[in-house]
Parts: sequence; C-alpha cells; structure tokens
Amino acid sequence: MTQIAVYGAGSWGTALAVLMAKAGNAVALVGRNDEEIRQMKERRENLRYLPGVVLPQPLEPTTDLWRLKAELVILSVPSHGVRGAAQLIRSYLHPETIVVNTAKGLEEGTQERLSQVLKEELPGHPIVVLSGPSHAEEVGRDMPTTVVVSSDDRKAAEKVQELMMTPKFRVYTNPDLIGVELGGALKNIIALCTGIAEGLGFGDNTKAALMTRGLAEIARLGVVMGGNPLTFAGLSGVGDLIVTCTSLHSRNRRAGVALGQGKPLEQVLQDVGMVVEGVRTTKVAYELSRERNISMPITEEAYRVLFEGFDPKVAVSNLMMRGKKHELEEVAQLALDQQAQD
Amino acid sequence: MTQIAVYGAGSWGTALAVLMAKAGNAVALVGRNDEEIRQMKERRENLRYLPGVVLPQPLEPTTDLWRLKAELVILSVPSHGVRGAAQLIRSYLHPETIVVNTAKGLEEGTQERLSQVLKEELPGHPIVVLSGPSHAEEVGRDMPTTVVVSSDDRKAAEKVQELMMTPKFRVYTNPDLIGVELGGALKNIIALCTGIAEGLGFGDNTKAALMTRGLAEIARLGVVMGGNPLTFAGLSGVGDLIVTCTSLHSRNRRAGVALGQGKPLEQVLQDVGMVVEGVRTTKVAYELSRERNISMPITEEAYRVLFEGFDPKVAVSNLMMRGKKHELEEVAQLALDQQAQD
Repeated sequence: MTQIAVYGAGSWGTALAVLMAKAGNAVALVGRNDEEIRQMKERRENLRYLPGVVLPQPLEPTTDLWRLKAELVILSVPSHGVRGAAQLIRSYLHPETIVVNTAKGLEEGTQERLSQVLKEELPGHPIVVLSGPSHAEEVGRDMPTTVVVSSDDRKAAEKVQELMMTPKFRVYTNPDLIGVELGGALKNIIALCTGIAEGLGFGDNTKAALMTRGLAEIARLGVVMGGNPLTFAGLSGVGDLIVTCTSLHSRNRRAGVALGQGKPLEQVLQDVGMVVEGVRTTKVAYELSRERNISMPITEEAYRVLFEGFDPKVAVSNLMMRGKKHELEEVAQLALDQQAQD
Repeated sequence: MTQIAVYGAGSWGTALAVLMAKAGNAVALVGRNDEEIRQMKERRENLRYLPGVVLPQPLEPTTDLWRLKAELVILSVPSHGVRGAAQLIRSYLHPETIVVNTAKGLEEGTQERLSQVLKEELPGHPIVVLSGPSHAEEVGRDMPTTVVVSSDDRKAAEKVQELMMTPKFRVYTNPDLIGVELGGALKNIIALCTGIAEGLGFGDNTKAALMTRGLAEIARLGVVMGGNPLTFAGLSGVGDLIVTCTSLHSRNRRAGVALGQGKPLEQVLQDVGMVVEGVRTTKVAYELSRERNISMPITEEAYRVLFEGFDPKVAVSNLMMRGKKHELEEVAQLALDQQAQD
C-alpha cells in the first residue's frame, strides 16, 4: 500500500507531493489529464502548474485511481470540485484512509464548509483540513512555511502533522475546525477587495485599512458560526489573509486588480486561467451575513461589484465614507458575540 | 492665534500639514532648518522629505517658534527627539494647546511611552496620540487612509478627530492609549524582522508566519502592560503591522532587507538616511520582555542580530525550528493573561 497519495496535480497538489517525497515518502501524484501526467513523468516537472520545480524520484505521477488506496490521501482540487472528487475517489480508498482537504471555500447552495461536504461523501473516513499562509510556488522551493491542520479527530490531525512536518514546513495543530476553515475561505473575499483597491490606484494605507476591517468582519461571521475568535488571530486567519492580500502569487488578488482596472468579471476569470476561489465565496458569505444579520460591509460591496455590476470606485468610496468613528465599537462587538456564546 | 501648527517638517509632518491645509485650515509648518524652510517657501514643495507634493497656500513653512501658540500642535519628530522637542517648544505653547504626538516608539532608559514623556514635559496640556497605517507619501497624495487617535482626555481626542478628518483621511477614536501606543511602537520590530527574512531571500509564506507570530508577541507584552487585546486587532495593531511589513515606503522594512543581505547595522542606518525607529524599540522591548518574563522570541532574535552580531540566517532558522506545535497554546496564553487582568 502506497503510504501517501495526492489527488489533484495542480500547483498546490504538486508542491505538497514534492514536499513529502523530499522527506523520503513514496508519493503518488494522481491526476486526470493523461497528457499532463505523461509530460510530468518524462520531464520530472509540472510545466503548467509548478514550472521550475524538479519532481524528486519517490514521487510518481499517475492517472491510476487505485493508487489512492493509501494511508493518507491529500485532496487538492478547487473548492467547487470537492464533492465531485470525493464521489469519484471514494470506492478506491482504503477503509482507514485519512483524507486531508486543502481547498479553501464554502459550497454554493448548501453553504457548507468543505469538511462537512467530505463527511457526507466519505462517511467513516477521518477528515483533516490544511490551511495557513502557503503559496505553492514557495513551498515547492523550500521557503520556510508554517501551516495549520485541524480535525474533529485529534489523532488523525496529529498523524498528518507527523507525516507532513519538515524543517522547512512547520505544521501546527488547532482543534477549532470551524474557525480554521472559515478563516481560510473568507480571506479570499478580502484579497479580491484589496486587489480592486490596488487596481483603482489606491495605495498601501487603503489596503491595510481594508485588511484590518476585513479581518474584523471575517471574525464576526466566524464567531457566530461557532469558530474560536483566537483562531482568526492565527495562521489560518490573519496569516493567510496577509499573504493572500499582499503576495504577487495570489490569484484572488490578481483578479481583484484586473476588476479594479475596469475589466469585466468573465474576462478576468478567463485571463487568470485558474480558479479564483474568492468569487464563489463572496456569494455564500454574503448570503450567510444576510441570513444571520451580521454586518459585513466589505463582503457586501464585493458582492455588488461581482454580481450586480456596481462600479468598484463607488464601492471603495462607500467603505471609506462610513459613519462609524469609534474603532473599538466594532471590535468590541466581537467580544460580546463571544460572551454570548460562552 | 493660528489654529494649527505642525512642529517638525519631515515627511509625516509635511504630509499632515498638507492634509489640514487642503481642508481649509491655516497651518504653520514649523521647521528648524533655515535652508529647507526657505526652499519650501520658494518652491512650495518639500524636496527632501516629500518630493512631488505641492504645498497648498494656507500652509506656511516657517522657523518661527512663536507660531506654535496654536489651538492644536502636531509634534512630528523621531521618537528619541520627543522629550527634547517638548522642552524646546513648551514656553511657546498657549496654555490650552492640545499636543498631538505622531512618533511611534518607546524611550530608551526610561522605557516610557511617548505620551508619558509628553505629560512629564508639558504638564497641563491635553496629550493625544495619532497612529495607524499611514505612509506620508500616500497621505500627501490623497490616498484613502484610516488612522486612530487616542488620549486620556476624551474631549481632546474628539477635537483632534474633528479637526483632522477629511473624506480621504478617516480618523477613529480609541480610548485605549496604552494599546494604541504599544501597537504603533512594537510593530517596527516585526517590520525589521520581516525585512531581514526578505533580505535573506525568503518568501511571502515566511513573512506571513513572522507577522502572525509577531502580532501575537506584541499583544502578549501589550496586555501585560495594560493594553486592551482588541486594540491589537485594530488599525494601530494589525493594520499598522501590515503596512509597515509589506510597503516599499517602510524604512524599517528597508533597513531589515539590508541587514538580511549582510550589511552591518551602522552602514544600514547611514544608507537609509532617516531614523529607523525599530532599532531603538527592539532594545526597549527586549528589556521589558526580560523584566516581565514574557515570551517574545522574535524580538529576542532581533535584539541578538542588531546588538550582539548574531547571524540573521541563524536567527530566522531559530524561529522556524521552535518546538511548539499547538497553535492555540500560544494565542490562548493571551486570553489567560487578559483574564488575570480583569
């Protein structure tokens, strides 16, 4: 039985497979595109999604789904593909296979977190999520990186930590599954918005204001949904927010920049060429904020720009012109929400 | 009596004078360098510290200290110059002049916050501090910016808010003076460190990890010193941290990059040519963390690099190699510290 398999040979799946192969594990990188897998075998490089990174020997690119009968299966597909992927692979898994989800988003329609989707589709399997500030391009190049794993099953989380940790890739555990998943998903909305501000020609002061207030609204929704407020101050909260809003590697940020420059959404998505998770997530978060009556002004403006054709310039200026003048009013609400939960 | 005077014609003092002059106030920009003030009068531009920004008409560059007999005096000098500046200007102030400090640091030797220094030197005057993510270069160019003012004197803070607020410059109030000052001062340490990591060739994942854990240690010290933990999640905490660690305008970051590239401290300070606040702040924060027995691993490594000649590469790898594996252990300590205070 192969110890580790990665399903999904995009940039993140490939980077994680490289990481674990370098640490001495036998890793099957399972993809669906015959031509791309063939090329990876031949050239020992994922030219399309992770160019410049050599695939080390214990990594085997393959299209054989039977290779998923592994101790650990890492799922690396876009968030809207998680349910379908789970349905496709479930009959190939070993009954005790631990499944690690690396996608960050919320399912449209059901509004579910992805671990909830996986529990429905893969009953009996321990489900672990991996989150935190970790661009594939840098993990593939051994840049020091820290991530968080979380699960309802503590033993499974600790097993994943043990298998994935290297001197350059620090894996922390956090028992707050809800907070870890929501932080990772919702930060993409803020990255779109800081990108839009950048595309409009605004500077670092504006972006920092959006990120600060964005973090506050993420935490507001997250706490109401059952997350621990401290998680949003951690790697899967502020850490992932920072990297996604400021790094050139971030697709959500790049998409936002193009939107701010006045390009229509459809063309932006086509140009980026990979999935921009923040778009779908904005829709679900907007619905949740309305249903639960939570103030999420940044998400609301993002929704209007993305789905109602609002002028981004008006959206940003709406945000800057709001009447609130006492900073702690806003953050203090978070503490009250938390007390109400305790 | 002139309504508003700014003491200190560096980049931030000039930007704030421009901001308030554009809002229609008569503003005296009081500097000490005859030649620079003369040039500003002639060219209507601060060529040395804020090139490219026109000084609007109601702004009057001057070396006349009598112009400080104003309703509001904004002090814009480096943090180690605050006490001396206060001593110099105090006999020129009107008895009811509100003094706004914009420097961010802690005084060497006394370890005092700058509002404490000002209260000692300017007894009877309401002291307000201004903080938040606000690069002078962008404020001078009308980029949307949000800041926080704080004071023990609520009326004075609200007066400053009223005088300084414009549609492009949002001023929030926050009653937590300790938290606002400590957030603004301590973030410069983390900016030096992320700069060092960048200079060593590390990427965005590493920087995000340093910033996340840096914010946690800032808050740990801040709470023990009496700050409100929520303030560190706000504009003068995470907001200012983000902008200082990621913006090209940041001198602290730039100094860190040069240190990471192996340049000696003295040369780095000479090259940057302006004050790098984080260097002195690292010293004071290191002392405070030792005296109060608070874990501040990033500050400790920064201290060793700056003052004990440690190799930055070893320092960063020390930080990445630490044993801790449970993320919430670290942040949870913050909540415990807070409870102990309540």
